[in-house]
Amino acid sequence: MFSIAPLTTASSAFIQKKIDNKTKPLGALGALELLALQLALLTEQREKNKAAAWRTHQISINKPSMLIFAGDHGINEEKLSIAPSAVTQQMVLNFLHGGAAINCFCQSNDIALTVIDCGILQAINANDIADINSKATNNKAVNDTAMAVELIEQRLGAGTENFSVKAAMTGAQLAQGFAYGEKLVKDKVNQGVELLLLGEMGIANTSSASALMAALTSYSVEQCVGRGTGITDEQLVNKVAIITKALQRVADKSSSLPRVNQQEVTTILAELGGFEIVQMVAAILSAAAANIAIVIDGFIVSVAALVAVRLNKNVADYFIFAHVSQEKAHQLLLKELMAAQTFSDTKVQPLLSLGLCLGEGTGAALALPLIKAAASFYNNMASFESAGVTV
Amino acid sequence: MFSIAPLTTASSAFIQKKIDNKTKPLGALGALELLALQLALLTEQREKNKAAAWRTHQISINKPSMLIFAGDHGINEEKLSIAPSAVTQQMVLNFLHGGAAINCFCQSNDIALTVIDCGILQAINANDIADINSKATNNKAVNDTAMAVELIEQRLGAGTENFSVKAAMTGAQLAQGFAYGEKLVKDKVNQGVELLLLGEMGIANTSSASALMAALTSYSVEQCVGRGTGITDEQLVNKVAIITKALQRVADKSSSLPRVNQQEVTTILAELGGFEIVQMVAAILSAAAANIAIVIDGFIVSVAALVAVRLNKNVADYFIFAHVSQEKAHQLLLKELMAAQTFSDTKVQPLLSLGLCLGEGTGAALALPLIKAAASFYNNMASFESAGVTV
Repeated sequence: MFSIAPLTTASSAFIQKKIDNKTKPLGALGALELLALQLALLTEQREKNKAAAWRTHQISINKPSMLIFAGDHGINEEKLSIAPSAVTQQMVLNFLHGGAAINCFCQSNDIALTVIDCGILQAINANDIADINSKATNNKAVNDTAMAVELIEQRLGAGTENFSVKAAMTGAQLAQGFAYGEKLVKDKVNQGVELLLLGEMGIANTSSASALMAALTSYSVEQCVGRGTGITDEQLVNKVAIITKALQRVADKSSSLPRVNQQEVTTILAELGGFEIVQMVAAILSAAAANIAIVIDGFIVSVAALVAVRLNKNVADYFIFAHVSQEKAHQLLLKELMAAQTFSDTKVQPLLSLGLCLGEGTGAALALPLIKAAASFYNNMASFESAGVTV
Repeated sequence: MFSIAPLTTASSAFIQKKIDNKTKPLGALGALELLALQLALLTEQREKNKAAAWRTHQISINKPSMLIFAGDHGINEEKLSIAPSAVTQQMVLNFLHGGAAINCFCQSNDIALTVIDCGILQAINANDIADINSKATNNKAVNDTAMAVELIEQRLGAGTENFSVKAAMTGAQLAQGFAYGEKLVKDKVNQGVELLLLGEMGIANTSSASALMAALTSYSVEQCVGRGTGITDEQLVNKVAIITKALQRVADKSSSLPRVNQQEVTTILAELGGFEIVQMVAAILSAAAANIAIVIDGFIVSVAALVAVRLNKNVADYFIFAHVSQEKAHQLLLKELMAAQTFSDTKVQPLLSLGLCLGEGTGAALALPLIKAAASFYNNMASFESAGVTV
């Protein structure tokens, strides 16, 4: 489906030597050193594919681009979330008007922001924007200075079906979602984007994500379900029951879970769905095919990454893990993704652990300065020889 | 010595309500929410002291300024470090030429950088700089684009005495160091600096720091000593023995350790010293007196913070902890500092945990974007009402 080269590690020793010759004790920059190795390998692979040589020996992560994929979920009929589905569109409008957390973080870290309507209940129209504008009295500070936010409409429908009783989407919708996600990333790459940050918005999308995780790993439904943005004990029990019912429905159709082959994985993705998750999976695979690093945000994006790994294991070496949340399910999921990486014996750890549970790509945006710092020390720091330091 | 107001929390409820009304689930920004509360309280206190009212209700952290305090240590005669004392000056020159890790991180995060010679073995002179310039062949990328680095000479001597056999410095040197540190920060505050980041450079200064920690807490010498930048088992045993000997010498002079009153604390600071540590202690106290937040870097800076807390406990509420290292001693030390904070029942955690062990203020510089992000969401994010979100 996507041609993704495994990350070549032939230059690892050369790169590590360059890191070790920087004016600092061995290993003193901790996690940033492994990150620099990964970014250097990725840059080399990209440059080689373009020009047959990595002439500069410099890490390049130009034009970091945040993509927020938004979609609505039929499963929200089951009242698994703290909010009605209408909030998805309200938050998309908030993104477009610069009032959300992700706007603040993208602006503060100089990240271009694109919001993709993958199939929220109601499409955004000019009147909605005008209406919100008239209400916007308190957030003038943002409106006056905010970076322009791009809206792209790649709608697969007006929300998915309720996956506890039927398939979330058709095979045709899935295929269209893959085509949309792929084209979007190809366009970004053509615009010179060298680092992709992913975020999402969709009321009830943790249910879809938990169901996918349970179907694609050996973890139990209980292990894959968390409290999301703050549901009650009763809602949690209900969420586990609904997801279990959905997985039984899906398992009845063919072999037992977890699914392993590509055909089975795409089927299960259509069954348990999430229009935004489908397009993220395609975006992740497309970015890796173009040798672009992908910054993985929270639980939902991590599930999209897991689906991508199940479709093509080579994709894992392109992941940078921005953030680990306090949810057990996210920790287990990241362990699974880290295990799939092969470019180094040392495992890349998530860069941040700040107790975030917001989504929107906020963790990824907050991690970007650390990624830039890794590139900066690799590209710019003096060696012992060049600085005349005698250790 | 310094007049430091306790952080007033009368506005905490007002500030928390503003945070809770932002378009996100309650608490969804995790550690950044507590940081925003702290920054808002600090800004209010500063504004009130200047103009009698916090009119904007906006967090202000303009002109973040990194101060690297450098000094040499007579204790390095005991061969407790992996490097000779000459490396301190070489690294100071590296800072001035833009080749060190801290240069990369300050540049990448837009932080002004000042290096203070508090008493390295040999003062920097024009020839040294020219000499290094001629050797600088590999780091052109930095030299071409680097921000100017300011050098300030506030020398208390040519390195301290060996504190295992005699006092590291005289009372007069200590007093001069306090005056220097205070004046430096007053100048920065007059230049409009509203956030201070601290770093240090000094071969063998972990020995001084560990000795101070052992003298000022109930932790044993073994608990206060780490491997620094990579000493051997044998060196570690020797380091513990040398520090134990020094503490016995100091304890013999008066009451038993740990010291508690101000006079005892200043005495022990002169005994176990570190010219750069003394000036950092004064800088920390001066910054708090001016209601400026202080970003605490690694082990050495944290020890300076501990000394400052022992001199005036009100200073603790002005601390932002950038980074926790993998060294047990640093973890214990941060616990001690966190316990001294009173502005919130929830304790402020260190923002990063990346396995750094470099000093130079690198952890503080890397944490700045998170601090800016906390200010940005507090100042700019929409409220539920202003965004028309119905949750």
